[in-house]
Amino acid sequence: MALHAPGAAAEDTVPAFADRLGRLAEQAGVSGADVILITPGPDLEYFIGHSVGSHERLTCLVVPAGGEPSLLVPTLERPGWAGTPAEDLGIVISTWTDGQDPYRALAELLPAGCRVLAVDYHMPAVHALNAQAIVPGSELTLAGEAIAELRMRKAPDEVEQLAAAGAAIDRVQRRIREWLTAGRTENEVAADIAKAIVDEGHVRPDFVIVGSGPNGASPHHEASDRVIEPGDVVVIDIGGPMPSGYFSDCTRTYVVAPDGGRTIAPKIEEVYGVVRRAQEAGVAAVRPGVTAESIDQAARSVIEQAGYGEYFITRTGHGIGLEVHEHPYMVAGNTTPLEPGMAFSVEPGIYLPGEFGVRIEDIVVVGESGAVLMNTAPTTLTIVGVHG
Amino acid sequence: MALHAPGAAAEDTVPAFADRLGRLAEQAGVSGADVILITPGPDLEYFIGHSVGSHERLTCLVVPAGGEPSLLVPTLERPGWAGTPAEDLGIVISTWTDGQDPYRALAELLPAGCRVLAVDYHMPAVHALNAQAIVPGSELTLAGEAIAELRMRKAPDEVEQLAAAGAAIDRVQRRIREWLTAGRTENEVAADIAKAIVDEGHVRPDFVIVGSGPNGASPHHEASDRVIEPGDVVVIDIGGPMPSGYFSDCTRTYVVAPDGGRTIAPKIEEVYGVVRRAQEAGVAAVRPGVTAESIDQAARSVIEQAGYGEYFITRTGHGIGLEVHEHPYMVAGNTTPLEPGMAFSVEPGIYLPGEFGVRIEDIVVVGESGAVLMNTAPTTLTIVGVHG
Repeated sequence: MALHAPGAAAEDTVPAFADRLGRLAEQAGVSGADVILITPGPDLEYFIGHSVGSHERLTCLVVPAGGEPSLLVPTLERPGWAGTPAEDLGIVISTWTDGQDPYRALAELLPAGCRVLAVDYHMPAVHALNAQAIVPGSELTLAGEAIAELRMRKAPDEVEQLAAAGAAIDRVQRRIREWLTAGRTENEVAADIAKAIVDEGHVRPDFVIVGSGPNGASPHHEASDRVIEPGDVVVIDIGGPMPSGYFSDCTRTYVVAPDGGRTIAPKIEEVYGVVRRAQEAGVAAVRPGVTAESIDQAARSVIEQAGYGEYFITRTGHGIGLEVHEHPYMVAGNTTPLEPGMAFSVEPGIYLPGEFGVRIEDIVVVGESGAVLMNTAPTTLTIVGVHG
Repeated sequence: MALHAPGAAAEDTVPAFADRLGRLAEQAGVSGADVILITPGPDLEYFIGHSVGSHERLTCLVVPAGGEPSLLVPTLERPGWAGTPAEDLGIVISTWTDGQDPYRALAELLPAGCRVLAVDYHMPAVHALNAQAIVPGSELTLAGEAIAELRMRKAPDEVEQLAAAGAAIDRVQRRIREWLTAGRTENEVAADIAKAIVDEGHVRPDFVIVGSGPNGASPHHEASDRVIEPGDVVVIDIGGPMPSGYFSDCTRTYVVAPDGGRTIAPKIEEVYGVVRRAQEAGVAAVRPGVTAESIDQAARSVIEQAGYGEYFITRTGHGIGLEVHEHPYMVAGNTTPLEPGMAFSVEPGIYLPGEFGVRIEDIVVVGESGAVLMNTAPTTLTIVGVHG
């Protein structure tokens, strides 16, 4: 099996979980659902501070509209719930045993006359459709928006956790020159970075992108056995979860010292400068009341005006918290107004096929008067591999 | 983001993928689906030898009943599909770009008049329900059974990979006495085992259960800071994916040498003997034509007859392959007849609350005349911590 036992949840966080659950039960009613069902994953972690399972055996939190939540877990995993916030919250925990039908057990926890079942975004289809099948005439909808409404706005303690995650990944970015040198492969560099991500306080590395030269022009290239050459532009996009469960995510783009000097190609300097201005424009546009898409527009217009619009092939950012990608997304069409506490990345890039890529990414939280940066590693062009 | 780039897929495996895809298109028709949709995960890996994505951006394989498959991927991940079997198979790969509606792009790949959409078990509800919503009047069903029909019967090359995985985890089990000694914590022992799992050929550890003393009575206990004591019974259940993508999974139960000698408590010897006989009975019952539940019964009846029936609180086994838990399950009610090539665990146990647990687990493949064992580490009672 593959178990997942995340973030520590201290006893003093129980009131926060109770508040979140209460608001979810309200949201269920507002959204027209009779019940919200949540299986293991970041949503479960957010609402009851613990999330195990996520394989084929059904574990499910049941939140009736305006009612009291309950939890169904496999008998053999019941001991793992002892002492978790779920118990402290007084949630009744039911069990089902191998050989029994878990969906019948689930049906007994549903409110009487239940017709609209709203499921979390991540719920595996096997659970969602089998839950629907056990309630004749029921309708399946997504609880994702109702849940995002809550998760999107970070409370002060969550912002603290994001700041700690940002500081941890910044420490790794500040050490990049220890590992990034000409003659090494991307994979070798990535392995060193992965180790440093843990050494600097993360539970594990979640992604380690080392995109050198032409590989940097593919935004989601990870790492390969390509040997890094003098003069290469190298995109380093790294992050992972902290013991709190909250994620870091930070991108910096480096230039490996060219043979024979510190002079880098003018095109690299130009493109880097455009991306840096775009990223600063995106961050500067952040304030309560503006739309998510306006952050995308602010960054994108700088790149378009410089003539590189067609090479900025991604959205500008994604929300971050207990997931590395979550709501809100900084993308055309997202008219969600930003509110204090929303946390997301601002990460424009220019990707020149066959040549190189440049991306700069910081996590920001919306403050009363503008963006609060969770990352503080310098965004100036850094040349590595130069000694003395 | 969190990417997943599994098993190497050599060029000579392309015919196997083509065969699997052809049979899936047939299965779609048989099961009444107009199209089967598969998002990243083990199913995608099985059918096209590559699986990346699995976060909020939609990647989806589209397999029309009796028709030609196509693939939808995010534009920014398109470069990652270059040179994969999907390209060698001649599958048309379409893209959608941030800011576009991926489900509209998906709709264009669906067969005309499509009404029944069958989705893989793992598909996140957000993708399944949004796919359904884009096709007015459509019905959502599970493709899991049709897919399991194919994945359940391992081809000879898959059995080879399972055997290699078994041999790798057996090497770790044979080295347990290097790490498992009184005075160390479960976590310390687990960390050493995790490292050895990688050293012996796995990509990563997927689970490392070190259940000492009373912790062993919880089947899915992982590891804790409990200090292992002389005389403890310790359940070690470990495994992970190999570079091929196929998983290992093997459990052995050890006894830490008691203070002052090699004599262990009679109850431990008795319980261990019962579990060992039950496990052997389960393995001995394996042959083509018998039902999956009969393997459970064979192992369970030994434990029941010894008077410990109420302490065997799990099913007897689970299928294994590109997932550590997959079909077929050795559980009451599963009347699936075993066929040559089916691969699964046989892992009865006795779990005595507050005292200790014993579990013995081997992976077997159904051969023409009985079980073929993928694990060969000894199942005799092993006492560790005795020198000389």
